[in-house]
Amino acid sequence: MSSRAISGFPELLPEDRLVETFVENRLREVFELHGFVGIETRAVEPLAALESKGETSKEVYLLERLQSARTLRSGDRGLDKNTLGLHFDLTVPLARYVLSNSNSLIFPFKRYQIQKVWRGERPQEGRFREFTQADIDIVGQGNLDFHHEVEAAEVMLSALNSLGIGQPLMEVNNRKLLQGIFTAVGIEDFDESLRALDKLDKIGVDGVAKILSENGLTTHQIEVVTGAAAITAGSSAELRERVGAFGLQSEALEVGLQELGELVDQAALFAPGQVRASLRIARGLDYYTGTVYETVLPGYESFGSICSGGRYDKLASDGKRVFPGVGLSVGVTRLVSLILGAGLLKASRSTPSAVMVIVNDEDSRDASEEVARTLRNRGIAAEVSPSSQKYGKQIRYADRKGIPFVWFVEAGAHSVKNLATGDQQEAAPLTWDPPNDCLKPQFDRTS
Amino acid sequence: MSSRAISGFPELLPEDRLVETFVENRLREVFELHGFVGIETRAVEPLAALESKGETSKEVYLLERLQSARTLRSGDRGLDKNTLGLHFDLTVPLARYVLSNSNSLIFPFKRYQIQKVWRGERPQEGRFREFTQADIDIVGQGNLDFHHEVEAAEVMLSALNSLGIGQPLMEVNNRKLLQGIFTAVGIEDFDESLRALDKLDKIGVDGVAKILSENGLTTHQIEVVTGAAAITAGSSAELRERVGAFGLQSEALEVGLQELGELVDQAALFAPGQVRASLRIARGLDYYTGTVYETVLPGYESFGSICSGGRYDKLASDGKRVFPGVGLSVGVTRLVSLILGAGLLKASRSTPSAVMVIVNDEDSRDASEEVARTLRNRGIAAEVSPSSQKYGKQIRYADRKGIPFVWFVEAGAHSVKNLATGDQQEAAPLTWDPPNDCLKPQFDRTS
Repeated sequence: MSSRAISGFPELLPEDRLVETFVENRLREVFELHGFVGIETRAVEPLAALESKGETSKEVYLLERLQSARTLRSGDRGLDKNTLGLHFDLTVPLARYVLSNSNSLIFPFKRYQIQKVWRGERPQEGRFREFTQADIDIVGQGNLDFHHEVEAAEVMLSALNSLGIGQPLMEVNNRKLLQGIFTAVGIEDFDESLRALDKLDKIGVDGVAKILSENGLTTHQIEVVTGAAAITAGSSAELRERVGAFGLQSEALEVGLQELGELVDQAALFAPGQVRASLRIARGLDYYTGTVYETVLPGYESFGSICSGGRYDKLASDGKRVFPGVGLSVGVTRLVSLILGAGLLKASRSTPSAVMVIVNDEDSRDASEEVARTLRNRGIAAEVSPSSQKYGKQIRYADRKGIPFVWFVEAGAHSVKNLATGDQQEAAPLTWDPPNDCLKPQFDRTS
Repeated sequence: MSSRAISGFPELLPEDRLVETFVENRLREVFELHGFVGIETRAVEPLAALESKGETSKEVYLLERLQSARTLRSGDRGLDKNTLGLHFDLTVPLARYVLSNSNSLIFPFKRYQIQKVWRGERPQEGRFREFTQADIDIVGQGNLDFHHEVEAAEVMLSALNSLGIGQPLMEVNNRKLLQGIFTAVGIEDFDESLRALDKLDKIGVDGVAKILSENGLTTHQIEVVTGAAAITAGSSAELRERVGAFGLQSEALEVGLQELGELVDQAALFAPGQVRASLRIARGLDYYTGTVYETVLPGYESFGSICSGGRYDKLASDGKRVFPGVGLSVGVTRLVSLILGAGLLKASRSTPSAVMVIVNDEDSRDASEEVARTLRNRGIAAEVSPSSQKYGKQIRYADRKGIPFVWFVEAGAHSVKNLATGDQQEAAPLTWDPPNDCLKPQFDRTS
């Protein structure tokens, strides 16, 4: 059997998977503290649904039953709208889930979803073809008040802060504000100019100006767009002052200023210094209609955004009803690869076990098992030595796995040895407790 | 967008997903208490690897990049050994994972894995094409002592018992014992007779006898096989007595008797009455070499096995080294469908929130957010009312989601109302605690 890795399909060793699990669990806990319920959706959607979201549909993996692939002549293996493909994000499935269950859900519906997604990319360095996303969305029926756009930022920053990897910086913008600026200065094709602006980080101001010029914008229009894109602000007052300097007016601009200002002012209460208005943030996709979010980890800005999203007025619609929403998505696999690569978190051991119980000889394995059972009943993860070799060999097994304590079953009093300190003390299974920081694997910076 | 369900790809509403999450979390907690570490493997394997495990390879879903499907002429869309398919179980990926990481893993390697698997079946009633499995395996390098076959049963029964859905009955057998009986009575084709025996529950004793007869077995041989298959025993003494009545002798028979007897005697210590030797248990797959396990939930025997597995002497091999293992697998999706269908567990609410904070008017939403933040910092899941409508309407929203408490922000003292009892009391966010059974959703029988 081949045991080769497949490019783009990452797998982790146990100690690294423990870090990933820690990240997923922390996110989950904080999402739940905010009243978000976890759902899972099927991994597949019909091709028609996957193609409804534009560009990304190019990168879909289609499914075909092996039986069909073998028995049908190749000419009959056609694609149609019902061909199933693996989902490439968690938004398309959410939209469908909301539509099909709208009579059972209570709106606003707050859900989180931590699941694998797949992209049928050509194999290339650094691109994941299978990865985990952690999404939160708040979905309304008919309408969804602006305060949920503030809520989404608060929930996600609380979750990211709980990881202990530093305080991420969330950069926010508002589509209405950009649209308002563009309208006020007489730019007609909003989407095209937005896509140019979205390339700012890659191609710089000159590159963007060149595209806008090719699109027929005047020098003045280009100056306003690139000038506005340079604006950042930490409060509504700063924002009004800096945007005001351009002397523009439009209805959308006023609504956008109001919303974006409210978001940064509110954020100063729940995450001081972590949310900044940044008019450069465009986000490529055209379905966003209000707040847009990107998030970087200070010191690792070149890694790009670890968490992005936005407000969309039409997540889903069945013709009669419309479901607006706001959502943010963490690329868990990417974030964990950053965390592991930069040594931001490391597991203190490669097993959940806090204790390994020594086996004196195979005839007395029962007695060792009984000790482990008592410890487990008290919530202490324990395993029994797989062998009854000499103590030194048994201890070496525990030590290699990073198990902090070994337990000696003796005729008189039992004793427990701390492998890190060498300290050995009498102990009874019904009363002994490991130090709090040894009960479960800990996750700390490596430096 | 179509919101149709796809046959075989189940999805749960939030309150049912809470039950599934509860089941997964309980299994995970108990696996970890026993020192098992969680891993995840990629969802795909090369077709060659998927075909190495016999029959099931017929039911594989193959992947194809949409780009290729569109751009290649159909004649060029060939299958080869590198074509990727979705894994149909967690054993094939484990074998590969162990081989590729054998230098980094510490053996015996104890891992659990809770992940989706896919089977490319034709759509039909009651067959899942996407489902979650929870597997535990203990994998040795070179050898793996018998006591791990006892351990696997103990871990899994502890995990299943923790669900609060009754005490499952694990029926166990041993391939060596069956082989020994077959050999002693002169049957040569072990695999063929085993496959016939595996059909006992479906086609009855007469049906099995018919197949064995067609396979050329003598009347005496058939009598022994079907007679032995009727044996059950709760202790090694019972087992020896009942098998002894057939007056057979072989080396394998003696080893099998010894092992199976030890398993049921040990199990009487950790799960009294829950493990029974049953010589009927054959398990179809031919790679098992020692203990085999099946598990039923009393009262729901017709549902079939909720957890099965066995010992295999060769999980993986790279030519030089061999990795034996023992493992058990729970069909989580099937088990949860039984639990929900039979009402064995129900979530006490459809949201994690223990409290909803009332909003007096939009200008004072901040004050309500502040209360919720204080509660969350103390580990109490809280959400703020999405609207500032009349109290009655806000309370109705909380009530529909099953949130047990609503919080009133008042100029003087705050108060909190228990929606189930109507009781309302003064409370402060820094000191108030919900009753323990209201902090998180509870999972109880519905009747």
